[in-house]
Amino acid sequence: MSQQKPRVVIVGGGFAGLYTAKALKNAPVEVTLIDKRNFHLFQPLLYQVATGALSPADISSPLRLVLRGHRNTRVFLDEVVDIDPIAKQVSLIDHEPIEYDTLVIATGVSHHYFGNDHWKPHAPGLKTIEDALETRRRIFLAFEEAEKETDPEKRKAWLTFVIVGGGPTGVELAGAIAEIAHTALKGEFQRIDPSEAKIILLEGLDRVLPPYDPSLSAKAEESLTRLGVTVQTKSIVTNIEEGRVSVRQGENTNQIETRTVLWAAGVKASKMGRILSDRTGVELDRVGRVMVEPDLSIAGYRDIFVIGDLANFSHQGDKPLPGVAPVAMQEGEYLAKAIVSRLNGGSIEPFQYIDRGSLAVIGQNSAVVDLKFLKLSGLLAWFIWIWAHIYYLIEFDNKLVVMVQWGWNYFTRGRGARLITGESLPNMDLDFPSKSIESLKPPAVKV
Amino acid sequence: MSQQKPRVVIVGGGFAGLYTAKALKNAPVEVTLIDKRNFHLFQPLLYQVATGALSPADISSPLRLVLRGHRNTRVFLDEVVDIDPIAKQVSLIDHEPIEYDTLVIATGVSHHYFGNDHWKPHAPGLKTIEDALETRRRIFLAFEEAEKETDPEKRKAWLTFVIVGGGPTGVELAGAIAEIAHTALKGEFQRIDPSEAKIILLEGLDRVLPPYDPSLSAKAEESLTRLGVTVQTKSIVTNIEEGRVSVRQGENTNQIETRTVLWAAGVKASKMGRILSDRTGVELDRVGRVMVEPDLSIAGYRDIFVIGDLANFSHQGDKPLPGVAPVAMQEGEYLAKAIVSRLNGGSIEPFQYIDRGSLAVIGQNSAVVDLKFLKLSGLLAWFIWIWAHIYYLIEFDNKLVVMVQWGWNYFTRGRGARLITGESLPNMDLDFPSKSIESLKPPAVKV
Repeated sequence: MSQQKPRVVIVGGGFAGLYTAKALKNAPVEVTLIDKRNFHLFQPLLYQVATGALSPADISSPLRLVLRGHRNTRVFLDEVVDIDPIAKQVSLIDHEPIEYDTLVIATGVSHHYFGNDHWKPHAPGLKTIEDALETRRRIFLAFEEAEKETDPEKRKAWLTFVIVGGGPTGVELAGAIAEIAHTALKGEFQRIDPSEAKIILLEGLDRVLPPYDPSLSAKAEESLTRLGVTVQTKSIVTNIEEGRVSVRQGENTNQIETRTVLWAAGVKASKMGRILSDRTGVELDRVGRVMVEPDLSIAGYRDIFVIGDLANFSHQGDKPLPGVAPVAMQEGEYLAKAIVSRLNGGSIEPFQYIDRGSLAVIGQNSAVVDLKFLKLSGLLAWFIWIWAHIYYLIEFDNKLVVMVQWGWNYFTRGRGARLITGESLPNMDLDFPSKSIESLKPPAVKV
Repeated sequence: MSQQKPRVVIVGGGFAGLYTAKALKNAPVEVTLIDKRNFHLFQPLLYQVATGALSPADISSPLRLVLRGHRNTRVFLDEVVDIDPIAKQVSLIDHEPIEYDTLVIATGVSHHYFGNDHWKPHAPGLKTIEDALETRRRIFLAFEEAEKETDPEKRKAWLTFVIVGGGPTGVELAGAIAEIAHTALKGEFQRIDPSEAKIILLEGLDRVLPPYDPSLSAKAEESLTRLGVTVQTKSIVTNIEEGRVSVRQGENTNQIETRTVLWAAGVKASKMGRILSDRTGVELDRVGRVMVEPDLSIAGYRDIFVIGDLANFSHQGDKPLPGVAPVAMQEGEYLAKAIVSRLNGGSIEPFQYIDRGSLAVIGQNSAVVDLKFLKLSGLLAWFIWIWAHIYYLIEFDNKLVVMVQWGWNYFTRGRGARLITGESLPNMDLDFPSKSIESLKPPAVKV
């Protein structure tokens, strides 16, 4: 065993996990990256899939492709269902347990309905490719249903889109849906005018993009309004049911009749946080994220690290680091260095996040950028947004296609990827056997 | 009513239906195109989606976008479930019946398992986007499972791919899977060598591409063999079950242990053929296609036409016209002319198909082309194939992206669109509510 290299097991191939693996490329360790998907998802652009501008593969990179040159790394398509910190191994659904010397957990977060999980079927979130395709299906199907509907009230409900949450995702979704209604679908319907659609963005606090500078929030709201979005701040959603959202604004509660509600509000930790806490006693925060030490390890376990959105890092500033890609990437890169340093008997300084600023896009030619030393909005901000995203995309593989698609969309104002897939009609015969296939599934849980 | 323009109802937005609608652009008629999908699918390239080279949206065009400039045309997302040739109307799932003066049925074909529908879950066909994503999922998941499998026999079964049917689709699929195994996945796995995969193409007749000239069939078989495909002709599939295909070749029946079987063999008519026959007494052929008159109408009903793959046109040559895109497009264009001609009190000659040749691609740099006056194989044929497909694609919308993607794939030999979406693991938590959403569905059948 003295010959064996230290085994680093990374759970999750998002920004945090993948950047750890990438940074360990030439380290004298054996890396195993486990993910339940075979691709890394560039989540900041997921709203573009949800609104028909890009295809899923445009913002996804096969993990094996990204890590192809890594001779010390193997990739496992599987899901970790348990952790044994004493035996130092993780249990998988479809494989025998895998032992580790260092464990890195980076399984992220999912949606949080603030205790109202029954809202979920009526208001899908936006975390996975499947979420995005479901959102896309709902948006474009709503226009199709409106076209067929003869009752004016019902038609109006099909043409009302409510986005819950005024953070970057909510702002980007609202802006994109406004562009769909006013530009992309123009002239394509015979009975309805898509630009009559009402797009309502609800935010509980007093402004959109709450983490940004108030001046940028104001700019964003202005741009959204110009695009045709109704921005309602200080608005708390009190109920979501079929065809209706209840919203409290001050003393008043109003009902919005709508057939399309999109959820861009809370997040909660993935279940790996709870499992880890059960096995190690580590503290979780209010939304289930794991409280991490200054070096991203967990209390009492120097060989277990939690990074990315799942981690609550509260050792810098007066609140936890935000769940954004730059934090995840920097944590991954830091951790890779820390692991190598430890192997050499050394130690490194606590993790320190370098905040290079925030950006959010509102629509074509419009974004807000907060570079700390410089706050920008409008066209120039939009160019910075484009540049920053292409810069990160080209780190991976075939993202040339994204540039071409964006260029094409820009000049045609088109949304060619607006397929309604899956069920679009009741009893629709798609001639699609998938759900009945038992034969294809791997054998039952072994561990 | 004398003011109203004649109403042409077209059922199906494939090549046949869409080309009819396109050719009626300036005709003095009111066109209603009904399809259960909101997009036209460029089916000849579906195998490229199934093998991770292109994304669904790359080969799909929103019907409304294609018909945007048509002021006489409305598009309906719905499914026709019945026809009343006396009242001259069609019934829909989600809308009141629609009346027609002229009815055009172009709903195509689906897979046919020769009376063995229980094979279907084990051997998906390739007709829809959902089929293609399911095929893609199975192909790439098989390599992932092989990587995790420790039993050599089971691993071998995961690395064995059987394609049933040696027509163009089967040949194209087999060639593409061979390229995946030998090129695209090279160096990405740690335990398996993807190029050890066995790809078996089964054909019942004595050569692949039976409708082509025998010299081209021989060239195709040679190219496939060079790519690493095992071509087995005169091989009849007698059973498909979980993990196993039974094949009779002459006197012998062999078992192939495999986890991935793809169906590219028979087709049968969509159910609209049976409905039409029940309502009008029109004759169907052995696979349920509708026997049409020389002008593509059906016997006894001058106002009902059947075109595309659903039609059996047996008035030219010694067998029915093949179910290929050029036939469907020419039928659509002919029919549009015939409809206008009739409006003017005239009549036109019977439909005549102009066969400009056939093509099938085998792999990178390799195709066979039969232009009747010229038979080609190899690189030049491959260029002709590329050119012909881009020519048709650019008739629609954003297909610039396809060219870029192809160019990229060519030089990188990559398959960036190889996402495994949907369920890839038992009990996998995708956090995906879609299947439980009743609220989203339109109200129950009204008609």
